Amino acid sequence: MKYNQYAYVETDFNTQVKELINIKFLPSNYQTLSFTDLLKVMSENAIAEVAPDAEDARQAKLTEFAVSSEQTLADFLAQQPEQETATQFYNVALQLLGYHVHYDYDLDDPLKLMKKQALPFLTKFENKDDLIQGFYRLLNTRAKNGQLLIDVMAGKGYFYNRRQLFDSNKFVFLNGKSLPVFATSKVIREVVYVESDLDTNNDGHSDLLQVTIFRPFESQKMPVPALYTASPYFGGIIANEKRNHNVDENLSDATEWTNPQYVPSNQVTAKKPTGTNSPANQAIENAVGKSSYGLNEYMLARGFASVFAGAIGTRGSDGLRITGAPEETESAKEIIEWLHGDRIAYTDRSRKHETTAFWCNGNIGMTGRSYLGTLQIAIATTGVAGLKTVVSEAAISSWYDYYREHGLVIAPEDCQGEDLDLLAETCQSNLWDAGDYLKIKPKYDAMQKDLLTKSDRTTGQYSDFWEKRNYRHQTDGIKCSWISVHGLNDWNVKPKNVYKIWQKVKNLPIKQHLFLHQGPHYNMNNLVSIDFTDLMNLWFVHELLEIDNHAYEQWPTVMIQDNLEADNWHEEADWSNDLGQKTVYYPTDDSELQKDGNGKQHLSFTDLGGKEFKKAKITESDWQYKFICGDEKWAKPSLRFTTDEFIHPVTIAGRPQVKVRVSSSLNKGQLSVALVELGDRKRLTPTPKFIMPGGQELGFRFGQDTLQEFQPDKLTHAKLITKAHMNLQNYADLKRPAAIKPGEFYDLTFMLQPTYYRIPVGSKLCLIIYSTDQGMTKRPLEETTYTIDLAGTEINFSQK
Amino acid sequence: MKYNQYAYVETDFNTQVKELINIKFLPSNYQTLSFTDLLKVMSENAIAEVAPDAEDARQAKLTEFAVSSEQTLADFLAQQPEQETATQFYNVALQLLGYHVHYDYDLDDPLKLMKKQALPFLTKFENKDDLIQGFYRLLNTRAKNGQLLIDVMAGKGYFYNRRQLFDSNKFVFLNGKSLPVFATSKVIREVVYVESDLDTNNDGHSDLLQVTIFRPFESQKMPVPALYTASPYFGGIIANEKRNHNVDENLSDATEWTNPQYVPSNQVTAKKPTGTNSPANQAIENAVGKSSYGLNEYMLARGFASVFAGAIGTRGSDGLRITGAPEETESAKEIIEWLHGDRIAYTDRSRKHETTAFWCNGNIGMTGRSYLGTLQIAIATTGVAGLKTVVSEAAISSWYDYYREHGLVIAPEDCQGEDLDLLAETCQSNLWDAGDYLKIKPKYDAMQKDLLTKSDRTTGQYSDFWEKRNYRHQTDGIKCSWISVHGLNDWNVKPKNVYKIWQKVKNLPIKQHLFLHQGPHYNMNNLVSIDFTDLMNLWFVHELLEIDNHAYEQWPTVMIQDNLEADNWHEEADWSNDLGQKTVYYPTDDSELQKDGNGKQHLSFTDLGGKEFKKAKITESDWQYKFICGDEKWAKPSLRFTTDEFIHPVTIAGRPQVKVRVSSSLNKGQLSVALVELGDRKRLTPTPKFIMPGGQELGFRFGQDTLQEFQPDKLTHAKLITKAHMNLQNYADLKRPAAIKPGEFYDLTFMLQPTYYRIPVGSKLCLIIYSTDQGMTKRPLEETTYTIDLAGTEINFSQK
Repeated sequence: MKYNQYAYVETDFNTQVKELINIKFLPSNYQTLSFTDLLKVMSENAIAEVAPDAEDARQAKLTEFAVSSEQTLADFLAQQPEQETATQFYNVALQLLGYHVHYDYDLDDPLKLMKKQALPFLTKFENKDDLIQGFYRLLNTRAKNGQLLIDVMAGKGYFYNRRQLFDSNKFVFLNGKSLPVFATSKVIREVVYVESDLDTNNDGHSDLLQVTIFRPFESQKMPVPALYTASPYFGGIIANEKRNHNVDENLSDATEWTNPQYVPSNQVTAKKPTGTNSPANQAIENAVGKSSYGLNEYMLARGFASVFAGAIGTRGSDGLRITGAPEETESAKEIIEWLHGDRIAYTDRSRKHETTAFWCNGNIGMTGRSYLGTLQIAIATTGVAGLKTVVSEAAISSWYDYYREHGLVIAPEDCQGEDLDLLAETCQSNLWDAGDYLKIKPKYDAMQKDLLTKSDRTTGQYSDFWEKRNYRHQTDGIKCSWISVHGLNDWNVKPKNVYKIWQKVKNLPIKQHLFLHQGPHYNMNNLVSIDFTDLMNLWFVHELLEIDNHAYEQWPTVMIQDNLEADNWHEEADWSNDLGQKTVYYPTDDSELQKDGNGKQHLSFTDLGGKEFKKAKITESDWQYKFICGDEKWAKPSLRFTTDEFIHPVTIAGRPQVKVRVSSSLNKGQLSVALVELGDRKRLTPTPKFIMPGGQELGFRFGQDTLQEFQPDKLTHAKLITKAHMNLQNYADLKRPAAIKPGEFYDLTFMLQPTYYRIPVGSKLCLIIYSTDQGMTKRPLEETTYTIDLAGTEINFSQK
Repeated sequence: MKYNQYAYVETDFNTQVKELINIKFLPSNYQTLSFTDLLKVMSENAIAEVAPDAEDARQAKLTEFAVSSEQTLADFLAQQPEQETATQFYNVALQLLGYHVHYDYDLDDPLKLMKKQALPFLTKFENKDDLIQGFYRLLNTRAKNGQLLIDVMAGKGYFYNRRQLFDSNKFVFLNGKSLPVFATSKVIREVVYVESDLDTNNDGHSDLLQVTIFRPFESQKMPVPALYTASPYFGGIIANEKRNHNVDENLSDATEWTNPQYVPSNQVTAKKPTGTNSPANQAIENAVGKSSYGLNEYMLARGFASVFAGAIGTRGSDGLRITGAPEETESAKEIIEWLHGDRIAYTDRSRKHETTAFWCNGNIGMTGRSYLGTLQIAIATTGVAGLKTVVSEAAISSWYDYYREHGLVIAPEDCQGEDLDLLAETCQSNLWDAGDYLKIKPKYDAMQKDLLTKSDRTTGQYSDFWEKRNYRHQTDGIKCSWISVHGLNDWNVKPKNVYKIWQKVKNLPIKQHLFLHQGPHYNMNNLVSIDFTDLMNLWFVHELLEIDNHAYEQWPTVMIQDNLEADNWHEEADWSNDLGQKTVYYPTDDSELQKDGNGKQHLSFTDLGGKEFKKAKITESDWQYKFICGDEKWAKPSLRFTTDEFIHPVTIAGRPQVKVRVSSSLNKGQLSVALVELGDRKRLTPTPKFIMPGGQELGFRFGQDTLQEFQPDKLTHAKLITKAHMNLQNYADLKRPAAIKPGEFYDLTFMLQPTYYRIPVGSKLCLIIYSTDQGMTKRPLEETTYTIDLAGTEINFSQK
């Protein structure tokens, strides 16, 4: 497995020397030292757990290292060498990087392991300059636990042991990245209340929004940037999944649609900030909430404050949760206004004591995944002052694309029956405090009813209600730089969300990046195969500390993890159909899929809804696997068309399109299409495997994270590449239903979820046409027969 | 689910007042306050996250609580009440305890929830004394997260916010337990090296043993007790399970046994301590290892140092791991000698700078599970000075009972093919440091060979090698108090280990306790159903701070968790066959088990070894479940005898005994017997379910733990109660093999693993006689036919 590294900035020798002296690794009198003495002092410095002035202890530690299968490092140094071999250097280096002799590598050939893991190395150590360059590169090399060696050393106390040597009011950098020199044991964790312009609970008072702040102690004297995570879950999660809506019901006639309208809440202008602090910069209320994301904690140890807020409706805040609505965006945005000095906040809910974000340098970045990534998109579109960059992971860009698709109610994976009203309840954690409960409950009940009605699970159609929840209409407002991260196997927030907003963001006059990994709904910051955390360090230093560290030139615009080899990242300039050439396949009358297929038949299948599925008592994911594999029982209500085995590898890039000419036995219907790779092989694990649990120190005694990676798993027969679903009543217009007649044919054009999928030699591609998707669609109680006219059916995709 | 509480010490009113004033919860001028003012100040104090001098913020928080479905606590107080109802008091109390209105309880009847969860409550609040008593009991009541409210408050900053009010060099107690008043952000984490009298690697130098210490900053001035965890895994775990020994082999003729002898290692007397410290009490080497046990961290926040050492062979230490040997005990014991001032240690491996445990009050307790519990037994038997108590969880009391049974090689659950040599390798983590590797590898290889040979997987017989690894011979040396904890479903370290040593320990002139829970190889410190952590606090305060807090009178000698209702703990004076009356069942000729059964037949079954099992590619636990259920395929190589359905509940207590008259078709054989409960019902989960993950704060910003409990799970058909295995060649003497003849009958008497098992009405009891146990015995390649003479077969157990 390769430890790829994109965040290493090429650095000239003089700068290397300057940086190493600056971090107290290289003695400033290094020119007066012999090769042996320089090797000794740098080796000892790398043994970070020992106090720098404990000479006997440092020396004793050298006996625990070996330069060869005969000699310890201590014995080698005793011979006063004037140079050493790369083998000798890297035998010690691998130990420092956390590898174990015999079990991981052989003292006779350390470079063998280094090559296998793609670790950088120098080939000669003939003089002191070589040594300095060797150690510089080594400190900036990823250790076995995935972190840079300098970060591993920091976790063992390197900076803590040298804290008197550093100015406590300065950031310290190495190779463009901020180092964890901050006093992590003194981090300030406090709560303030921002006053909103909203009055969502309509009591005549502006809503107060609780903000939780984790900031370096040093920020009392030196303003620092803030990483803000807008998290509706921060106040707690109301578990209501047992009350999810029933999905075992027939489709309705969508022409009953009434186009429900969005209605805004009450507004009350908040007081203007005066810039006073009362009492003098002291926390009145301790934070009790916890950071939910290792990346924030990692950056906190490196001087970046971490700010969490749930905003309207969440515990500690006033108001109602209105998921996806402009009010939600507004309230989450107002936190940034306070951070930037443009809005008032108080130390407590008495609204008597104003408090400013005096500790913030006015540069704010955002982080977070899922709903927390979604709110980054929402806020970015407002162009709010102070917001410099977003790193939005697995984010929703239009709520219709989360809970609906092409006129159908479509669940996020593993969330059958969930909907916007239930998600709003999940986040309405201010209900938990009985005093707030008394105040808010009747208004909350009314809002729940409103959300349920207007989100319209009956017809599943688009409307003004959903239109106001589509952030893609406001991308022109985006002023900050942009990083999107998404899993290509994310069936919770489906890849269409990131794909569609990317097509707009990529044309904005901002710096933008996209990472696509092989995960489902998942973070990517601890993968072996890419140094994402280091990249983010580089990025935030550039964007929020305004340091010219070449962050913009370090890695390609679009990075895509390969689905066959997890440590292979495709470097692309874009993600769209333009990456390849359009290829069209047609079904044949004998169920093949051929470029020159010319099927003419009418083929039918009868959909049974959820009948057999519920009887079988299997999980939705079990069903899906059996279904795509073509298991006889489950494949029955479907049509399948399969290619020959591929003799060259083919990559499907962008959004495949499927055209189907279909008729239904009823005056309604839902059709699904899926593209599947068939072939017996060991595919990657669905989620990354944990490697060395808790093995990454985020700072000195400051919490841990875990290295992980997708790895070849047990043999499977098939894998879903992409799919889509459509209401037959939307054959003519995806945003407006029409009546259809039983037995009459209609042409549907499906845009499938976008992908980047490499089909290996020997596998086949299979197009499945079906109706009920047990994990996502409603599961009708009645049977429906669908007839497909092969002459009107094709699949086309962009082939790379 | 009941939140049972055993650690609450009944306390008179005057003491309550004194304690509440002492923790700054009750104002010392409380007698001058009105009912309203007293209620207000104590309510505000209970809102621990707010600074005590922030009056507006405190007041504002009162609006978040409600006394009824109409009134907030703030509004109630504004009315200047002179008393309140229990309903009003406990509506607020439940919020403080972490319960959520509407979702957990109803404002109209808070006592309903309290009764259901067995939470204590007062019935009237008519005056200030009632209020004081109500709050005293409330602070000492277990919250929703399982912790006492005072601990929940501490986790939110109660003591941190009041740190100026406390003398930083004093323990503070409430209700007999130590409180987390210590400065957790300043905990000292350091490493020292104890000099051993051993020279296990035979290099002429005494072995140095690395010790990792986590101690309160306050211990610089005030000596504190130490909780020592002897953990061979602390330096890291060498993963070698893929090299486990082959178990798919025929039994050997045990008469080849040679009785391998234990041979002691070299000894070199260590230097005597002089009591000097160099340099002045300052850490030279930062600790990088982590605590593995929440209980230690919980106690650390409460002023008890936590000390970890791996001792011989582990990373940072010299020497060879010799699992189970007297050297292992000696080296682990020597850490206590240093803590107690009786042995020398150094700040580093140069052996130049002596360092004392000046910070330790000389009172040491031990904690840990499994191997870490085992070493407690080992050390306790030495009677070493300073060791005051052990809390030994899931411990081995004789290594033969871990890897062998009655002349057979028997694996711990999920560890087929593991043995003592491989466990020694697992812990020989000093191999990882290349310098140490060069020094130790050849000697390590020789030791591995020696352990493999002498542990004698060939015959499986007892020997001097194992005799020296049986701690039960030395129980007379035990001087400290004793707590054993064990899971009744622990098939890794089987319950015989704790049962047999308990029979000796219970008669010693020490205070002793036993906890038996329903887990497998598992900790019990975060269960809902018992306040084990609080009990340990009370216990350690009593034993190591020598405070008379009534710890010895708080709970019964033996506590046993019920297997039907997890929140029902049986309070017993002992655990032995004496708990009940002897009951005998005999097989009948038609496969029943009856008290008056009089089977006369000879019945045979043919054992297939591992043949079918390996073909089926199922897991060992899958096999076991199918096997005990009587699945046709797997039940074939066995005989089964089943009772009628029980019409009264029956508890089997102690060690059941099975007598079998058996002949083998070969001149060797292994026989297994199992006792199984048959009946379709929802049994408890095998491991406790997590409730509110990370929801317990161990101190203020000092790590978290998770509440958990066994809960009714999906329906199963059967459950293993107990089993045992025996080599036919040990029919006459369990410690000495004898030749046997094919076709000849021998009488075997099995002592099964001890239990405490309640058979519910409607279930049946089944005796299974079989040979190969896929998860535990060797799996012969040859077939063997066993014939049982029913006339010589019976089962008897102690029925309660």
